[in-house]
Amino acid sequence: MNAKEKETIVIALGGNALSSPHGKGSIEEQMEAIGRSCQQIARIVRSGTRVVLTHGNGPQVGQILIQQEQAKGVVPPLPLDVCGAMTQGQIGYLLQQALAQALRAEGLKVPVVTVVTQVVVSSGDPAFKEPTKPIGPFYSKSEAEWLHKSKGYVIKRMGSGHRAYRRVVPSPYPREIVEGRTICRLVTSEHVVIACGGGGVPVIREGGRLRGIEAVIDKDLASERLASALGAQALMILTDVERVALHFGTPEQINLERLSVEEAKRYLAAGEFPSGSMGPKIEAAIRFLGNGGERAIITSLDRAQEALAGQAGTQIVRVQQPT
Amino acid sequence: MNAKEKETIVIALGGNALSSPHGKGSIEEQMEAIGRSCQQIARIVRSGTRVVLTHGNGPQVGQILIQQEQAKGVVPPLPLDVCGAMTQGQIGYLLQQALAQALRAEGLKVPVVTVVTQVVVSSGDPAFKEPTKPIGPFYSKSEAEWLHKSKGYVIKRMGSGHRAYRRVVPSPYPREIVEGRTICRLVTSEHVVIACGGGGVPVIREGGRLRGIEAVIDKDLASERLASALGAQALMILTDVERVALHFGTPEQINLERLSVEEAKRYLAAGEFPSGSMGPKIEAAIRFLGNGGERAIITSLDRAQEALAGQAGTQIVRVQQPT
Repeated sequence: MNAKEKETIVIALGGNALSSPHGKGSIEEQMEAIGRSCQQIARIVRSGTRVVLTHGNGPQVGQILIQQEQAKGVVPPLPLDVCGAMTQGQIGYLLQQALAQALRAEGLKVPVVTVVTQVVVSSGDPAFKEPTKPIGPFYSKSEAEWLHKSKGYVIKRMGSGHRAYRRVVPSPYPREIVEGRTICRLVTSEHVVIACGGGGVPVIREGGRLRGIEAVIDKDLASERLASALGAQALMILTDVERVALHFGTPEQINLERLSVEEAKRYLAAGEFPSGSMGPKIEAAIRFLGNGGERAIITSLDRAQEALAGQAGTQIVRVQQPT
Repeated sequence: MNAKEKETIVIALGGNALSSPHGKGSIEEQMEAIGRSCQQIARIVRSGTRVVLTHGNGPQVGQILIQQEQAKGVVPPLPLDVCGAMTQGQIGYLLQQALAQALRAEGLKVPVVTVVTQVVVSSGDPAFKEPTKPIGPFYSKSEAEWLHKSKGYVIKRMGSGHRAYRRVVPSPYPREIVEGRTICRLVTSEHVVIACGGGGVPVIREGGRLRGIEAVIDKDLASERLASALGAQALMILTDVERVALHFGTPEQINLERLSVEEAKRYLAAGEFPSGSMGPKIEAAIRFLGNGGERAIITSLDRAQEALAGQAGTQIVRVQQPT
């Protein structure tokens, strides 16, 4: 297979690919989870596929926000866009180091590079009118009121208890990957590229310049934008479950092997997929296929290789075929 | 001038190019300083030179360490290599955004990219036997003793007062830029690349893999390694003063316009340049010329463009010419 014929795949790593879901976020836990993930990724690279990795940053950016809050009397806190860029450096570094090691273990000498990525959103995005994404530490009611007055934070009550208040920020739709062309050039020169960490740093265009904003971008939707910009053949979204399911968590649960775009749209509209978890993944898949992608795959990390071969996970394709 | 004939220059930005020396480290101060720096850099790009930017991270990594210390009861602190990678994301993002804006203001559409950079050091480097580089918060004597016992930190007393103790870490010599080839490819495809932030994340080779270590690399020495790896014609180190001086800060101070490698070596050996500031800059210049570089320039940010034209700063060249 020559270079021109190689398939390009964008793989979006979920939170459990980067740290233990029940851990405290220590570096040992992070490195162990990342090491395991990179072994899977290295096998996909060995199969002859060009790979671009994207990843979330929820726990990591949460930890930075908590640290900033605790130290605010001594060190001025940085805005959310800058914190997001910090997590791109942090997670990108750990991934590039672990992935290079896993590739060497597979006998491959493929360069790995992390690109700090900005993603353009529209200042007119309806998400700015209704922030929904909880972020950072929990506050007491009086702290919450003070933060709202002094900093304009939108705060929501989450559950019960004394410290039940949390900041929510907008999650606007990603429109354009600023570093898209650079990433494309690196992919075609046989790099494994790590990009769009945490969904990318959200920026708006303002009179020809870019300006960071206080928001977070869904990493699966950003991954779709990147995959479409690269003209990738496949978008693979890794999550906690092997397959997308209907009636998830009920006795009637049905795991889906294959799903057409039309079916996916219908189920999404029918509310089968919750907005905080499977919803954006299905939406990303639908958009990717609408933008020329061949297939989207949703599966778990340990089934990634089989799913790429069509033997596991949920395959979302343009037209339903007999299974 | 066609692309092949273009000169490549590595420009090392000092701390005052990134933040106000007397400020508190707020984002507004950082963005203002970075904006100013990028105007100068953009003019150099406009002159037809290929530019690679490196930068320090002292204040930024110090702030992260203080935040980690304050929040250590809630969030597990990350090791120094990971903190360094975080500052690469942070500063790289701010630089790439400000530089893209400054380039557009000059009528240029040049892509800017930040590459998370690892730099290999030797585990046998003598620096590991004698840590010298102070880093992070100040501690009281009892805290210092506890940190030494529990974490093995080397702590030194710095001056007087109650909280006069600080951790010191090794500053080993940079040997190889792990992402050197990737950076080279980006430079030849007309990118302005931001790399080696904070001197790069220090890693050692361990049985074929890389492992991050608790150390910091001098950013000027790392910039030399990068400039030599790229085959750059020039290395420009920006600092607080316009020119290198002999007898600095005395009535006999002599500012130097031009310096041969031999002279530079002699003055360095004679102790003219302190190890914490001008010393490594002179050493980087000497090494760069020894490794095939044409000239090294040490000057201040506001004289950068003139210095590149040979009309300001201190020019260090292989053979002394009549001035």
